[in-house]
Amino acid sequence: MSWIDTLKFDSNGLIPAVIQEESTGNVLMVAWMNRQSIEMTIQTGKTHFWSRSRQKYWMKGEESGHVQIVKEISFDCDADVLLIKVEQKGVACHEGYKSCFFRSVDLKNGEVKINQERLINPADVYKKK
Amino acid sequence: MSWIDTLKFDSNGLIPAVIQEESTGNVLMVAWMNRQSIEMTIQTGKTHFWSRSRQKYWMKGEESGHVQIVKEISFDCDADVLLIKVEQKGVACHEGYKSCFFRSVDLKNGEVKINQERLINPADVYKKK
Repeated sequence: MSWIDTLKFDSNGLIPAVIQEESTGNVLMVAWMNRQSIEMTIQTGKTHFWSRSRQKYWMKGEESGHVQIVKEISFDCDADVLLIKVEQKGVACHEGYKSCFFRSVDLKNGEVKINQERLINPADVYKKK
Repeated sequence: MSWIDTLKFDSNGLIPAVIQEESTGNVLMVAWMNRQSIEMTIQTGKTHFWSRSRQKYWMKGEESGHVQIVKEISFDCDADVLLIKVEQKGVACHEGYKSCFFRSVDLKNGEVKINQERLINPADVYKKK
């Protein structure tokens, strides 16, 4: 039996994957995988996900070139979340930030602040179709 | 309008929260919040969640004393995932490990290995009812 058989997928056959940059510990993004995208991730060594909105597989970086090289895969005590450590080429966020979590909340007054520099201009990476 | 109004909750009114130890960068756990548990988290400075299996609010550490002191709250570009940096008292995992992600997969052969030390004996923390 494969370790994948021990995972608990939700009613749509999906499991959330937390993507963490191995070198910095920064949490880059969270996206959803199904059984096949986990297998594609292991076979290729690059993260593959299932898009709930587009109902299709996607490889991170397929358009931008900002792929994620898989370094480690872990799963939690309930076996219903994956944690994947990666080497991030370029940036993780389609808005040009290294991490998708670029907005932080001031805990005292609820104000939202940008917590990182924008490293690239999305218009340079994602061509208009 | 509060920043909470800008979040995208799922059809059950829930949003996943990635909990990260501020001092080490370790991802400790992922659990679900609804609007009220986010408000409880901010008001008390300690993480509160919504249990999908028990259909009730719970504060991390309510039984074990292993609470999480909130240091930073961020959210991602799609506004459908929270990242919360905390100071973890004791351990995050009810199985006695610091992080719930204590099992890693060997990418070559699929073997599962424990990647951390068990720091406490769960039987000492969770009393039988």
